[in-house]
Amino acid sequence: MIGVDWGTSSFRAFRLNHGGAVRDRVESGMGILRVPAGGFAATLREAIGPWLAAGEDRVLLSGMVGSRQGWVEAPYLPCPAGAAEIAAALVEVAFDGARVKLVPGLSDADQTDTPEVMRGEETQIIGVLDRLVADAEHEGPVAQEAWACLPGSHSKWARIRDRRIVAYRTYLSGEAFAALRGGTILGRMMTDGPHDPRAFARGVARAAEPGHLLHHLFGVRTLGLMGRLGEAESASYLSGLLIGHEVRAALPAGALVHLIGAPVLCGLYADAVVAFGGQAAIMDADAAARGLAAIGGAADWT
Amino acid sequence: MIGVDWGTSSFRAFRLNHGGAVRDRVESGMGILRVPAGGFAATLREAIGPWLAAGEDRVLLSGMVGSRQGWVEAPYLPCPAGAAEIAAALVEVAFDGARVKLVPGLSDADQTDTPEVMRGEETQIIGVLDRLVADAEHEGPVAQEAWACLPGSHSKWARIRDRRIVAYRTYLSGEAFAALRGGTILGRMMTDGPHDPRAFARGVARAAEPGHLLHHLFGVRTLGLMGRLGEAESASYLSGLLIGHEVRAALPAGALVHLIGAPVLCGLYADAVVAFGGQAAIMDADAAARGLAAIGGAADWT
Repeated sequence: MIGVDWGTSSFRAFRLNHGGAVRDRVESGMGILRVPAGGFAATLREAIGPWLAAGEDRVLLSGMVGSRQGWVEAPYLPCPAGAAEIAAALVEVAFDGARVKLVPGLSDADQTDTPEVMRGEETQIIGVLDRLVADAEHEGPVAQEAWACLPGSHSKWARIRDRRIVAYRTYLSGEAFAALRGGTILGRMMTDGPHDPRAFARGVARAAEPGHLLHHLFGVRTLGLMGRLGEAESASYLSGLLIGHEVRAALPAGALVHLIGAPVLCGLYADAVVAFGGQAAIMDADAAARGLAAIGGAADWT
Repeated sequence: MIGVDWGTSSFRAFRLNHGGAVRDRVESGMGILRVPAGGFAATLREAIGPWLAAGEDRVLLSGMVGSRQGWVEAPYLPCPAGAAEIAAALVEVAFDGARVKLVPGLSDADQTDTPEVMRGEETQIIGVLDRLVADAEHEGPVAQEAWACLPGSHSKWARIRDRRIVAYRTYLSGEAFAALRGGTILGRMMTDGPHDPRAFARGVARAAEPGHLLHHLFGVRTLGLMGRLGEAESASYLSGLLIGHEVRAALPAGALVHLIGAPVLCGLYADAVVAFGGQAAIMDADAAARGLAAIGGAADWT
């Protein structure tokens, strides 16, 4: 089968063998925002045409391609949900020459009934379930729950139990970082440059101190004004401050967190998780491919 | 004497009589960012020339005009400080035809030694001290401390005792609101329109619920996505969320807060203060003029 992780700004297709291993892959910048109106079928065919010609006839898509701005809107499936529940809720898409199905996003609600949404992350989490189960068994019977974090513009923290995503919470940290850097006086004191691990750690440590994030943010300016934070350090400090606040709020005490996403960003989150007393394990980059294989394997293609 | 509140984007000059009452006033958009290099003296003379010609010979300036980007940099004076301490630390500026002095900003540091800075707000606080003292006496001997809040891009919460500013904290709420609205997906769901008091109150109430601000921010998107928050309501909700978080963090339990600033913004803060169990009093618009009169009256002009 063919699995496609089709997000807002990226397109990643995998040709998967029966065991779920990646046999071939295609990546491009053709995220859904770059697809012209009515152009989803053509974009897909252009990317995976050779595999279809070679006999593949099952295609599973996950990510924002199933959103209102995507190809077809796939209604959210409520948590708790695992591969079986997701596979039973796939949405069929008309396509000439292959069966094409869409993974629904997962919905949830926090303790005060504010809605949560994800699209694509559920597939990546399904792709690391074997590892989560193995780690939980390694920790013994106490660890009945596992935690996955998918850092990004809208970071997700998911609680997993019995191979199902039980609940999750979203934090706007990545987008807030970009907006604060690009749109406030804080950014005017920042020069571009390499990541500064020491400044990042200072930001994380600051997040552990008393005071609200909105107060801590002003400190980015005053520390710079007083010569205690250099212009080349400020961006890493702000990043540490925001990631630190997120991890402090989201991390269950002492938990082992499985990080799924871009390796550099996962590394930053791992540092923050450890700083707040947790443990971190960074997953490999093929979580989405394995999740697509697992969901596709549980689906009814007849 | 003449008092001038000269900020980043505004210029307000007052001709003050001996009692400190405003005899005449001039306002313009000639904030320090619009003054050409080397043009501070000329800008000032153009605005207050007629008063100088009428015999005024003492000019007191407060605000960002005393910053590194201003006319002359006036070093920060550390808290605690009142009118006498500030008056003793004025910085003289060369000007032909009148004595011109600059009010220094006030510095402070929070419990973890992160610096705080203000320029201009100290003068406004000095301008409401009589009212603060009267209110404290009204509340009886228990109320030895008074609280002032100056909402804005960088909101200040100041603790006052014995007519001196003892300490203060800054919150980046106003700038964060603008950056989040202008630079994230949250803003793309917002239409311009009148302030929506009900949506604002919902945002304030949300700030009282469990969960970090970074998580609450994502709810602005999901509530919109689910049709539970209209595009015309979202901006007011986001404003309530940020102001609510600030007030929740900054408000001492049950305190009476004196709000100084733009009347509409002070009204929003008053609503949030009351929602979190405090009391609010909105000061009139001439706090800066009275503060300049009080500091000028305590200064040595010989």
